[in-house]
Amino acid sequence: VREPIRVAVAGATGYTGIELLRWLQGHPKVEVCRLTSEQYAGKRVSDVYPSFRGPGDLRLEPLAPATVGRDVEVVFSCLPHGTAAPVVASALESGATVIDLSADFRLRDVSVFERWYGPHPAPARLGEAVYGLPEFFRAALRGATLVAVPGCYPTGALLGLLPLARAGLIADGTVVVDSKSGASGAGRALRLDLLFCELEEGMRPYGVGGHRHLPEIEQELRRAGVEARVVFTPHLAPLRRGLLSTMYVPVRRSAEVAEAFEATYRSEPFVRLLGPGRFPDVRDVRGTNDVAIGWTELPDAGLAIVVTAIDNLGKGASGQAVQCLNAVYGWDERTGLDALALVP
Amino acid sequence: VREPIRVAVAGATGYTGIELLRWLQGHPKVEVCRLTSEQYAGKRVSDVYPSFRGPGDLRLEPLAPATVGRDVEVVFSCLPHGTAAPVVASALESGATVIDLSADFRLRDVSVFERWYGPHPAPARLGEAVYGLPEFFRAALRGATLVAVPGCYPTGALLGLLPLARAGLIADGTVVVDSKSGASGAGRALRLDLLFCELEEGMRPYGVGGHRHLPEIEQELRRAGVEARVVFTPHLAPLRRGLLSTMYVPVRRSAEVAEAFEATYRSEPFVRLLGPGRFPDVRDVRGTNDVAIGWTELPDAGLAIVVTAIDNLGKGASGQAVQCLNAVYGWDERTGLDALALVP
Amino acid sequence: VREPIRVAVAGATGYTGIELLRWLQGHPKVEVCRLTSEQYAGKRVSDVYPSFRGPGDLRLEPLAPATVGRDVEVVFSCLPHGTAAPVVASALESGATVIDLSADFRLRDVSVFERWYGPHPAPARLGEAVYGLPEFFRAALRGATLVAVPGCYPTGALLGLLPLARAGLIADGTVVVDSKSGASGAGRALRLDLLFCELEEGMRPYGVGGHRHLPEIEQELRRAGVEARVVFTPHLAPLRRGLLSTMYVPVRRSAEVAEAFEATYRSEPFVRLLGPGRFPDVRDVRGTNDVAIGWTELPDAGLAIVVTAIDNLGKGASGQAVQCLNAVYGWDERTGLDALALVP
Amino acid sequence: VREPIRVAVAGATGYTGIELLRWLQGHPKVEVCRLTSEQYAGKRVSDVYPSFRGPGDLRLEPLAPATVGRDVEVVFSCLPHGTAAPVVASALESGATVIDLSADFRLRDVSVFERWYGPHPAPARLGEAVYGLPEFFRAALRGATLVAVPGCYPTGALLGLLPLARAGLIADGTVVVDSKSGASGAGRALRLDLLFCELEEGMRPYGVGGHRHLPEIEQELRRAGVEARVVFTPHLAPLRRGLLSTMYVPVRRSAEVAEAFEATYRSEPFVRLLGPGRFPDVRDVRGTNDVAIGWTELPDAGLAIVVTAIDNLGKGASGQAVQCLNAVYGWDERTGLDALALVP
Repeated sequence: VREPIRVAVAGATGYTGIELLRWLQGHPKVEVCRLTSEQYAGKRVSDVYPSFRGPGDLRLEPLAPATVGRDVEVVFSCLPHGTAAPVVASALESGATVIDLSADFRLRDVSVFERWYGPHPAPARLGEAVYGLPEFFRAALRGATLVAVPGCYPTGALLGLLPLARAGLIADGTVVVDSKSGASGAGRALRLDLLFCELEEGMRPYGVGGHRHLPEIEQELRRAGVEARVVFTPHLAPLRRGLLSTMYVPVRRSAEVAEAFEATYRSEPFVRLLGPGRFPDVRDVRGTNDVAIGWTELPDAGLAIVVTAIDNLGKGASGQAVQCLNAVYGWDERTGLDALALVP
Repeated sequence: VREPIRVAVAGATGYTGIELLRWLQGHPKVEVCRLTSEQYAGKRVSDVYPSFRGPGDLRLEPLAPATVGRDVEVVFSCLPHGTAAPVVASALESGATVIDLSADFRLRDVSVFERWYGPHPAPARLGEAVYGLPEFFRAALRGATLVAVPGCYPTGALLGLLPLARAGLIADGTVVVDSKSGASGAGRALRLDLLFCELEEGMRPYGVGGHRHLPEIEQELRRAGVEARVVFTPHLAPLRRGLLSTMYVPVRRSAEVAEAFEATYRSEPFVRLLGPGRFPDVRDVRGTNDVAIGWTELPDAGLAIVVTAIDNLGKGASGQAVQCLNAVYGWDERTGLDALALVP
Repeated sequence: VREPIRVAVAGATGYTGIELLRWLQGHPKVEVCRLTSEQYAGKRVSDVYPSFRGPGDLRLEPLAPATVGRDVEVVFSCLPHGTAAPVVASALESGATVIDLSADFRLRDVSVFERWYGPHPAPARLGEAVYGLPEFFRAALRGATLVAVPGCYPTGALLGLLPLARAGLIADGTVVVDSKSGASGAGRALRLDLLFCELEEGMRPYGVGGHRHLPEIEQELRRAGVEARVVFTPHLAPLRRGLLSTMYVPVRRSAEVAEAFEATYRSEPFVRLLGPGRFPDVRDVRGTNDVAIGWTELPDAGLAIVVTAIDNLGKGASGQAVQCLNAVYGWDERTGLDALALVP
Repeated sequence: VREPIRVAVAGATGYTGIELLRWLQGHPKVEVCRLTSEQYAGKRVSDVYPSFRGPGDLRLEPLAPATVGRDVEVVFSCLPHGTAAPVVASALESGATVIDLSADFRLRDVSVFERWYGPHPAPARLGEAVYGLPEFFRAALRGATLVAVPGCYPTGALLGLLPLARAGLIADGTVVVDSKSGASGAGRALRLDLLFCELEEGMRPYGVGGHRHLPEIEQELRRAGVEARVVFTPHLAPLRRGLLSTMYVPVRRSAEVAEAFEATYRSEPFVRLLGPGRFPDVRDVRGTNDVAIGWTELPDAGLAIVVTAIDNLGKGASGQAVQCLNAVYGWDERTGLDALALVP
């Protein structure tokens, strides 16, 4: 591949879009060549986000599905679910590799997709997509042409659960995933409930017993052989960024929990194991592609408590999308992703 | 009783203290006569909290255990655990009724207390205290001389669990209590981790698997006949006030959950049942003595998810203390407590 | 007047509307009888604001200008400017007293109004309105039929400037008013720039050199004989509530500044003079109708720095509207307004 | 010079220290070799800030003034004023270049220093220091051995004022500097007034008429020939990071204001001129070394309003310290400093 590779970003002015641009601009093997935005077509990125500057500060174009993938090697889609699928299909037909941040290609079973999202616009492509969690699907990502970047909640949950699942440690019963997310996870949407005055000093659950990210968590746990039921409760916290998932996991052989984490993540550059009895704060991964994981075992209860912290726009979306890019091309996955958290 | 009754507040300048003063000053049957503060003795309340004014803006005195209960009918103690017990004992000997906001008299079993807090300074008094959750111990509160006001976490948890417990609906297994608290729950303490720069845009669990409020929750569930184990995880959220508890409860006869809540709380002035499928936000109880409760049943999983929201300084501390006062004297429990939440 | 008086609130579900309802429900001489809301007609207040409850939790009606003032003594209008004027005119024709929180009747000169807001829908009424700053227009408010409640910024500025103006202490030159406001001042509006993610950890000026509240400040200073120019810069701060105004005032006879404040405000129940060298924090007036004022003199520079803090929804809007109601009826102005700030 | 150069950081665990480490670790010409911390000696940086990792995650040493400058080319001092001066002197004697973030060498006149800070520990060195504002003292910085990095408030003020001052545009009269700062500007100090519960939803001025950064602003304006008086009012805003300065400047020839900004900053990599009538938000410089500047002229009033936004830990402290390092060595000043703001 001739470097830098040329990339396009569809839907560049939402929160995952602008975060992706931030990462891509610092990536030494990438040249950002095309940005689309329906709302701001004709303006530059810096007209929408005055903080942006540099070579990626291009003029925004209206989305043209037929040409979005032309003359670029990679198309990142930051479009909403439903809107993304036909654009993804067009871009694939142009010969581009597509890294899709929407939900459209995450679920492998059309009927499950349709139960949660409605009719799927390109069901034939479902089987093609590689689930973009590099810590677990690195081999499949190498050379992939369609990557479905996981949702923020599934990322936070699965990074804490899959090591135990793959080691056969999750017992039957109910896995409780209690997640607390920052507001940027809902996107840059004009919704009353996302106003500053409605969110600050507030805290509330939503989608109790029926959030769209549940089937995605379940799908991946099933693939790892877990039979346990998952109960998932997202909460909206007065944070811009950050996603903390506190998980109550029925385990067998709790003495092997630590080993499962250590064996799985020994060489992973973005995973920080805080070890038993030490727990993460979302502030410590702010602005990074890191995940921090703590856990404790309650052997009498047959439970482990596992807590993961990610930045919902970082490892939960755009950072992970860049990590997937690196994995597709076989580059060091840290390329362009070595920022430290902004603390305080 | 001659009204207004005369009251003293020991430890008046912490967060529970100043919140209590706010409530007491608006209470038509109370006259605040004595306020103590070690740190600010000699100053007025308004020197410490410039927002305070009115008849309760007294000069603060150093604490004198021997006389704190003299010439008053009621002593509220907002002192920390360990410090409170001897003062409570002195005040009781002076003939005052004591409403204690510390942990010193909440646990009935000395050995349990000592496992979590160290030696108890007045173990003989443990049996005397009435647990100050008026919705469940109203009869015992009437005329009580020592009230142990529950902790904020136990209040949030028990208001969601006791209706199910008393109806015999909690099955064996594990009750998960995942709580998210505002920072004022930690008091006005000079701790690095409570600085604005350490908390804003942060979210973290603490005391995982071993917080001092756990035995209090367990004690009250045991008294209500529940055998299930409790796993309790508190989190610190970037809120000043507010305590949301998301609870995962193994239930039998899930069809009876709604009825249990409705029967228990039908006439309770401070309880708002949002009903199945609707959930509370802490902002909606800010500055009040209210608790808002939502729930949903997951019959396939044999679980109910119950969510309660309180203001940790309101129903979680000082508001409840005033409600206990009303209950002790047999007054309408709403007296002095009818504020609406400050929204937005 | 037979008490309680019957009142209607037009535009009850915006932020000034819900705050007004909070105050009115606690007012012993008022019965809330009619609430209008275009957006939520048919619902109850508590459907929109789950924190609301009590006798004021009425069903919302669509606004009917011809009948909004029927069968009530007072109509509060929380409608936006332009929308308010015809409703106000109708209500006045029904014989109701109107307390208008919009800008429609604040400016006395039609040409000034039209320069900032466009054509005025009821210019003949301009002369009728009493400017609702009770500390300065109490006599005129008594028995008034139309009250124009000042804007939040003018209230914050004028409470700091008028005592000096009336004492003839403001010299020629430029008065700088640098104000920092919470986001609720912008109302419950679906605007991208009011989203949590756009405001938290932000701080910015707006309307520099040309905000609509400037002519209102100028008008009242002119009435008080001040010739100095006013430069006014509002800022949006990451607060829900609170409005701090830091003012740099050219003064003559700076030794008389303190006396001017003390003489003006000696008997005012809502004004706290912190005195020279002590300055307010907006948190100390949160949720109240209070204003806190601090100042210092810089005699060498011929300047005084005056700082005022109000709650933009309290003294800056709905609290002041209730104070005006009290003034119109000659009641103790504190009636229904004696809340303490919610601190912390 | 052999690259990477070796550097030490004294006082590495305060907020300016950790921010400096973040920048230095990403700097390709620097190797961090020694870190001191009295409070955390013996621990690693990541024990204090769990977000930190990488080659700079060294073990912290107690400060040894005699050896802090040994075997390194540069010592950064993030020590508090008073503590810094003797360490700086020792390091200079060891032959190291010192970049000092304290106030100890910013003021050139000992008597001015002593009026605000008390006795100076190394007055002989005062004349040696170069004031570390590269946009204005770049030539003097090249090869300097002692750099006094400006305070955050003076940086924010001077970047807006010096272009006008040097062009002779500031008229006699009073320059008002009204600044709003995030809490990290006060450092990681155990102070009650910096607690989350004391700051969130608050806004207050402090040091009115007498803040220590005033003489620093005055000194640099005097050097640029300005006779006008400066009135400076800092405010504490509920931000972690960010410093907005709104300045009211008496100007002559207001038509030349834009030109003065453009001529001064045409080639400056960290300065963004938003142009007349467009104003900055602190969020847009968060985590960067940028300054954003907007202004408007009010010719009738003979005033310009100039607004600058910086990150108080970036351009206001540690970012600028790294820019000074680059200037001392004659490197491209952007080296290691090209981060984009973290938005949202």
